Amino acid sequence: MKQIDVIVREVGLRDGLQIHPTFMPTENKIAWIEAEAAAGVSEIEVTSYVPAKLIPQFADAEEVTRRALTVAGLTVAALIPNSKGAERGLALGVHKLNFVMSVSRTHNLKNVRREREESVADFRRIVKMVRAQPEGRRPKVVGGLSTALGCSYEGRVPVADVVSYAVQLAEAGADEIVVADTVGYADPVQVHTVFKAVMAELGALPIAAHFHDTRGTGLANISAAIECGVRRFDASLAGLGGCPFAPGASGNIVMDDLCFMLDSMGLRTGVDLERLLQVRSIVHAALPDIEMHGALARAGLPRNYVRADERRAA
Amino acid sequence: MKQIDVIVREVGLRDGLQIHPTFMPTENKIAWIEAEAAAGVSEIEVTSYVPAKLIPQFADAEEVTRRALTVAGLTVAALIPNSKGAERGLALGVHKLNFVMSVSRTHNLKNVRREREESVADFRRIVKMVRAQPEGRRPKVVGGLSTALGCSYEGRVPVADVVSYAVQLAEAGADEIVVADTVGYADPVQVHTVFKAVMAELGALPIAAHFHDTRGTGLANISAAIECGVRRFDASLAGLGGCPFAPGASGNIVMDDLCFMLDSMGLRTGVDLERLLQVRSIVHAALPDIEMHGALARAGLPRNYVRADERRAA
Repeated sequence: MKQIDVIVREVGLRDGLQIHPTFMPTENKIAWIEAEAAAGVSEIEVTSYVPAKLIPQFADAEEVTRRALTVAGLTVAALIPNSKGAERGLALGVHKLNFVMSVSRTHNLKNVRREREESVADFRRIVKMVRAQPEGRRPKVVGGLSTALGCSYEGRVPVADVVSYAVQLAEAGADEIVVADTVGYADPVQVHTVFKAVMAELGALPIAAHFHDTRGTGLANISAAIECGVRRFDASLAGLGGCPFAPGASGNIVMDDLCFMLDSMGLRTGVDLERLLQVRSIVHAALPDIEMHGALARAGLPRNYVRADERRAA
Repeated sequence: MKQIDVIVREVGLRDGLQIHPTFMPTENKIAWIEAEAAAGVSEIEVTSYVPAKLIPQFADAEEVTRRALTVAGLTVAALIPNSKGAERGLALGVHKLNFVMSVSRTHNLKNVRREREESVADFRRIVKMVRAQPEGRRPKVVGGLSTALGCSYEGRVPVADVVSYAVQLAEAGADEIVVADTVGYADPVQVHTVFKAVMAELGALPIAAHFHDTRGTGLANISAAIECGVRRFDASLAGLGGCPFAPGASGNIVMDDLCFMLDSMGLRTGVDLERLLQVRSIVHAALPDIEMHGALARAGLPRNYVRADERRAA
């Protein structure tokens, strides 16, 4: 039985592709999912249940979900912007519904055209809908908090607001809370402050971090969150994602670099670094014009590198 | 009087340029030094006192040093590989002599063709030479330890060796010890282990960290070192440097991103971020083919960003 200390979750198929102008063919998406699962990534956000006319990249959400669900051992997650999205996920039997709202009022209004209170009410309805399902058909419901570490409209976001909405989503029945630095504003000190404050209120409820590497602080923020006790992280292969507000800026945490850093720190991710790096070529072949990031891919592993699980065994 | 919490030191003119095949004209080097000093960087390693036939990039070491010494308020440092280099520095009146040896035996043999014990003996001679100078003409002598967090020949480097050579250089009379991750192997956990071990032995002697960002962990390692109490860091504008063993890999910590992260963490560097970013154009104009890195330069400052000194004042 493979031991895991930290769960890394691939979000590139959703957060990475959603701003890319070219549709990635379904077969390529499936090949990516299968290869990354085979490399040891145990959870993948495979799509978003938004109307295809809003984001054509996810026009194949149903087929991608169905086929991802056939990958043995993989936890298949999908983003849901609202209860309509939740209905689609329930019909498909997806394992995890990743609901998202913004802590910043302006961002929430621009992104989902909802007051934050309306978003919390939406989330309550979704949890109710899920709990009405027969046992064995109930996906996990995740409460995601965007712009929790800064907002491109409002700037700094009060820690008290992050805690308040985390508690509201938890009380509404979330199985997990995701705290997201949507626009890459965070620094390690702020990560300590925000995550400690949220975790103090959430008790044993799992908490995950979704950082962006827009200003270079991504892995430093991961390390700070690790110190706080966070053990679930979102990332995307080759850092796919970018930021619509900063052309050329890298977006998500680079999955390959994240897995390397965690493994170096002695934290087992279950991911085979060499096999993970090979998945990059699948993405590159499918979308030759997409900008790929990653330091490990350029530099390679250190000489005589000893993996975390080998060190544990020694 | 400007308050500083962390000293950031520019090493790009030495560590960044030494592997670049094109000579940067002296006037451009001076423009870079002047502009970065004006942006608030208080210490710059301006050159290396190696024979010009070995590294032609430093053929102008004398002129660069002399002119850098005219920049008001700037601490002018230079690398010295041996006592010949120290003699050149003493003749010029440079403020700081940065001696360097490798903790890894193989790396030291390849780099300076010396056993490590011979390097320590060299350092003792250099300290003696400096102390023989009249007061007011004595530069600070820095003991630098390369490959302290891993070696591209030997792999892992024993912590006990790092501590041993740090203590030997300290006892020989170093005014400061620099612990360097020359090939970018370090992770935050290792940084904690190594720096805590070294600092426990060095007492009040200043310690600095010289990290490379070869595998993306650079700023995470800075953050870990900050937690250990380190307050002096080497970096290079736009991450100039690369790694001769990893083409395309970024080399030094990106000065611009470092200053942003530290400032975000509430640590004052004395550096004006906007002015620092403007210095990049001087380097780019002088060496249009050099690869420049940096996330802040692409993404810009967060909206409504409040600087550390403004937050302190509020």
